[in-house]
Amino acid sequence: MVPPTRTDYYHFQEIPTRWMDNDVYGHVNNVVYYSLFDTAVNQYLIERGVLDVHTGKQIGLVVETQCQYLSSITFPDKVVSGIRVAKIGNTSVRYEIGLFVNDSVTAAAYGYFVHVYVDRETRRPIPLSASLRDALVKIAVDSCKD
Amino acid sequence: MVPPTRTDYYHFQEIPTRWMDNDVYGHVNNVVYYSLFDTAVNQYLIERGVLDVHTGKQIGLVVETQCQYLSSITFPDKVVSGIRVAKIGNTSVRYEIGLFVNDSVTAAAYGYFVHVYVDRETRRPIPLSASLRDALVKIAVDSCKD
Amino acid sequence: MVPPTRTDYYHFQEIPTRWMDNDVYGHVNNVVYYSLFDTAVNQYLIERGVLDVHTGKQIGLVVETQCQYLSSITFPDKVVSGIRVAKIGNTSVRYEIGLFVNDSVTAAAYGYFVHVYVDRETRRPIPLSASLRDALVKIAVDSCKD
Amino acid sequence: MVPPTRTDYYHFQEIPTRWMDNDVYGHVNNVVYYSLFDTAVNQYLIERGVLDVHTGKQIGLVVETQCQYLSSITFPDKVVSGIRVAKIGNTSVRYEIGLFVNDSVTAAAYGYFVHVYVDRETRRPIPLSASLRDALVKIAVDSCKD
Repeated sequence: MVPPTRTDYYHFQEIPTRWMDNDVYGHVNNVVYYSLFDTAVNQYLIERGVLDVHTGKQIGLVVETQCQYLSSITFPDKVVSGIRVAKIGNTSVRYEIGLFVNDSVTAAAYGYFVHVYVDRETRRPIPLSASLRDALVKIAVDSCKD
Repeated sequence: MVPPTRTDYYHFQEIPTRWMDNDVYGHVNNVVYYSLFDTAVNQYLIERGVLDVHTGKQIGLVVETQCQYLSSITFPDKVVSGIRVAKIGNTSVRYEIGLFVNDSVTAAAYGYFVHVYVDRETRRPIPLSASLRDALVKIAVDSCKD
Repeated sequence: MVPPTRTDYYHFQEIPTRWMDNDVYGHVNNVVYYSLFDTAVNQYLIERGVLDVHTGKQIGLVVETQCQYLSSITFPDKVVSGIRVAKIGNTSVRYEIGLFVNDSVTAAAYGYFVHVYVDRETRRPIPLSASLRDALVKIAVDSCKD
Repeated sequence: MVPPTRTDYYHFQEIPTRWMDNDVYGHVNNVVYYSLFDTAVNQYLIERGVLDVHTGKQIGLVVETQCQYLSSITFPDKVVSGIRVAKIGNTSVRYEIGLFVNDSVTAAAYGYFVHVYVDRETRRPIPLSASLRDALVKIAVDSCKD
């Protein structure tokens, strides 16, 4: 498969690495990549005003995640995350993320996670709010805008 | 898909949750599951004497990971990890892991990761050592013993 | 100063290390020790039924922490945490923690943290509940029982 | 005590928070602050060319850390770290760090850690290298330049 490049994503954010991200082999541990995924997507949603972590009625729970690791990242590299929405369902969303090291055009890693949006209290799936859907469409691939 | 149960795995280990594993929604963050995957597999390899983190010539680098989340885990739950080896290649291994909460028979989450074994210095793939292969076969599914 | 030993603490818990705890120098990162402190104390409080993370009216916020590192810890070491309460105020508590590696009698690290107990909603300090105070006295040093 | 302000520190760096930094109480967990301390200091040393994590002969081991928490930090706040060197010994250094949220002038938290510099192989203390000392003096308080 051809590794993704920056043009494959629609919203970007800089996420510096931290000392503690490095593991015993001297590069960022594979687990940390998912923390960057989470950060990239949730920050987009919070900044668009469609996710209120503390009092919002609707929250996103993760049901599936995956990552492919192409080349290593090492503190103090700066990572730029790129995100796009690949599928918008009635109650769920598939986010795809690429991580780019410093000025690289080609992703060092890429993956996805699937959020199911639930009622904060009952934790049962509820349809995406209109405002959330609007924010998603702005970074969605063409095939899921139909 | 039918969720895995304990009988689907061949080696088990208790991994208590930590306070910090809980995220703002009051359950273990999705990222942490991969830390438990890493811990379960590497601890097995170290205890069998086939992975020497500090001086061993051969180390395992993660090239792909995935996790499915079926039900939530909350600190101070105790997690039991179950592992099995699903594929043994010339230079790579696919590990599959199930996470079980307290006394549950059915997995709360399950996933896999693929290790490529490389020379510590050159970081180029090298064939699995005989001792590593022996340790893997002990927890391998039937289909990869042929 | 003489390093603390197990007899200096009144409640113990086993906390295995995780792969990711190791940093680039091959030992548990200094940050992780505080995660073990948090885990040891909060788990004690939850198990005694005096801290309800999700719905309790009173929660503990950390206002000061410290740790002294005497010898290194390395995954897959097992850590045993020992805790004691060194000071019980009207709205605050000083917890002291020692971390012991595997079967060691002498601490590998020791430190403390100070919790101020606040109302979950207002985040203003409120007096310790009677049940919390009871749980604290059980693991308190003599000087704070007067 | 008067809380530190930005003018009390001599080198600054932006460190965004991450989703996972938030704990169950909806703010950055107390443990994470130390990860920011580590990141701020080590990044300064690496960028000045006086710490080579992978091959340098001299590495810094942490022997003591402390933090005072004045006000909470919440993802997606941006944190700015300020650092200064408060004591330069023969083989050890005391770093002091303040963490500032977004545009705040007053620290949300402050603390210190003490590094002992050791030989990577023997892990025995060795005198600070001249180049390290130069980098330290640049961000040192007056009292330790004598």
